[in-house]
Amino acid sequence: MSAYHPLTESEAIERARAVPGVFAPGANLTVREIGDGNLNLVFHIQESGQGKGLILKQALPYAKVVGESWPLTLDRARIESEALMIQGELAPGLAPKVYEYEAELALTIMEDLSDHVIMRRGLIEGNAYPLFAGHIGEFLARTLFFTSDFGMNQQQKKLQTGRFINPELCKITEDLIFDDPYTVSANNNYDPAIENEAAALRSDRELHLEVARLRYGFLTKGQAMLHGDLHTGSIFVTPTSTKVIDPEFAYYGPMGFDIGAVLANLLLNAAAQGGRMDDPSALGDFRAYLLDTVKQVWVEFETRFRALWAEHCVDRLLRESGYLDAFLAELLQDTFGYAGAKMVRRIVGLAHVADIDGIPDEARRNRARRVALGIGADLIKRHRTAGSIGQMLAVANLHFASKEGN
Amino acid sequence: MSAYHPLTESEAIERARAVPGVFAPGANLTVREIGDGNLNLVFHIQESGQGKGLILKQALPYAKVVGESWPLTLDRARIESEALMIQGELAPGLAPKVYEYEAELALTIMEDLSDHVIMRRGLIEGNAYPLFAGHIGEFLARTLFFTSDFGMNQQQKKLQTGRFINPELCKITEDLIFDDPYTVSANNNYDPAIENEAAALRSDRELHLEVARLRYGFLTKGQAMLHGDLHTGSIFVTPTSTKVIDPEFAYYGPMGFDIGAVLANLLLNAAAQGGRMDDPSALGDFRAYLLDTVKQVWVEFETRFRALWAEHCVDRLLRESGYLDAFLAELLQDTFGYAGAKMVRRIVGLAHVADIDGIPDEARRNRARRVALGIGADLIKRHRTAGSIGQMLAVANLHFASKEGN
Repeated sequence: MSAYHPLTESEAIERARAVPGVFAPGANLTVREIGDGNLNLVFHIQESGQGKGLILKQALPYAKVVGESWPLTLDRARIESEALMIQGELAPGLAPKVYEYEAELALTIMEDLSDHVIMRRGLIEGNAYPLFAGHIGEFLARTLFFTSDFGMNQQQKKLQTGRFINPELCKITEDLIFDDPYTVSANNNYDPAIENEAAALRSDRELHLEVARLRYGFLTKGQAMLHGDLHTGSIFVTPTSTKVIDPEFAYYGPMGFDIGAVLANLLLNAAAQGGRMDDPSALGDFRAYLLDTVKQVWVEFETRFRALWAEHCVDRLLRESGYLDAFLAELLQDTFGYAGAKMVRRIVGLAHVADIDGIPDEARRNRARRVALGIGADLIKRHRTAGSIGQMLAVANLHFASKEGN
Repeated sequence: MSAYHPLTESEAIERARAVPGVFAPGANLTVREIGDGNLNLVFHIQESGQGKGLILKQALPYAKVVGESWPLTLDRARIESEALMIQGELAPGLAPKVYEYEAELALTIMEDLSDHVIMRRGLIEGNAYPLFAGHIGEFLARTLFFTSDFGMNQQQKKLQTGRFINPELCKITEDLIFDDPYTVSANNNYDPAIENEAAALRSDRELHLEVARLRYGFLTKGQAMLHGDLHTGSIFVTPTSTKVIDPEFAYYGPMGFDIGAVLANLLLNAAAQGGRMDDPSALGDFRAYLLDTVKQVWVEFETRFRALWAEHCVDRLLRESGYLDAFLAELLQDTFGYAGAKMVRRIVGLAHVADIDGIPDEARRNRARRVALGIGADLIKRHRTAGSIGQMLAVANLHFASKEGN
């Protein structure tokens, strides 16, 4: 890695220019560093007036969010580029195209998606994406099925598991999602106004046992190659297109972790809208859309997963034994649990979401936090009794009603 | 691997002579190839009249049991030697000492245990090993705990998982234990006299669903570095010593698979004794010893595992949440299931056990097979409701009584 150094903007331009077949020779290229994540530089290179562009994503050897004191190996850039290619192949059109990967620089050069918006931003602005549930259901079903023991050669799957051993980024998840929110930790970060609720998370033994089950599942259930960080900030959308980006947390883990991440972030936005929208009717409509999307994501996922199983399941015994129903029942339960864990960490943990932190009014902002925490903790506690996706909507509505007084 | 070739006996002697500090210079060494397994050459080198010896174990690039048509990579020799060293370090005195490992020849040079006997042989002869339950409980508790997310750094555990990706030997287990016995397969091998029982295994949908759960657990539950083939043919014993050998199936899998293997082989011997012993009182005594050993193996394991957890658990949330009880409850259930699967495969599958196949009287031999199959299938079907090790003894006694008429 001796050649490694963080690229300058002018180096990024020259590197982009060398990608064959994208820019005209001698084209006038502009660059902007647009990384809003914590772990990488992201250069957006554009050809003036041509609508052509590239993204250069370079891993940094530390996590920006905690300064240079949190070192990270650059191997995660390899993992991310390999995951992007696998996801792009398994779910065509739903991940950015990768042009090149340069190991020495921990650099991935990929499709420019600047005609898309980050889904979190779009939802905050109150936009609906009617095709999203189908798209993400397709992404989840195909990437999870075809990297699992159901959909790929089971010996190849073991070897692929070995290529996605991702200790450092898993450690971030293990700490920030499955530990810190439930104890006193310097990583925690919340408004003193919700101290009572945060303290309750730390003292709730029933909750801790359910979180322990989820944590242990994250540590040991090597079901499929996960995206590993599938929140609405990792999804680009337009009304007609969905692109899943940033799979640097990819590893072999429990499928419900990815599905739960999507649903959690929809529910976080639904909680936030209670602090943003003044018109009860508009609020009701948008929440109905969001909750319907929660349901549809699961339904679209399950429908496709069942179809893939029927056509492509490689495992004789699993296929013929009726195991699919048992598997999906447990997967729904995992999905409830991981969705809940993802919600809780976004309120009291290190990294928050703009959906809620950006609510202008302080009282409404903290009310939205209490709503989100209530839903999250409830989903965790109920996860092993979950029997239908409808129960997730009911939990959300319960907390909207009880904490917002409507 | 160009230097690889199966060693001749004279090469084995010269290689053994080169190990420092074992044999006197110019010692008169004798050699015997004693491999009774299917995958390896095993040379026993001895210095005449000195009681000193070495074992040279060399992996073959194919499985002998099915001829040269079943190729296997030699990387399993690395896996075996690394597993032996880890097990020896974690459970001192309970695994053979490794002197050298030579990658090019897929050769491990280790302690000579010819003062021990193979436990399967000892049990067939009706010998009891009163220290065995404590020894194997110690081996299981320490090797499973300290290679798991409970007892080692969780990021190192992920990297270690990557070093024990073992696709080919796992494939053997997946086929022979978790598939073939429940379908028509050329690998199956049983006496036509038990065709009815074998056919019942193939048509029992309830059984298939439970086997599917166990199979999927074997494919995905990366809990600890398993031995992977822990039957009584992989255990050397004396009245005072226990040594676990042959961990070439080592990989990260469900802990209950190793524990279940030990218990299954004790139960197979208990079933076999019904065909061997004529004196009901002697039979009753030996079975009482065997069933008590089944119970004690679990108790000794659990006691030690709890003590290790109390002193060494590295995971704050798991430690403080009361997760240990939940974990052990599930582990007991897995242990029932895997024990059952191990018993079934030894009756109708490719590889049998001498405990039963060596019963001289044909009718009594097939009765013992029916007893073993009955216990095995019952343990599989009941595994998710298992709540105490005592239930395993009850299941065994039920089938002894109902099938032997005593």
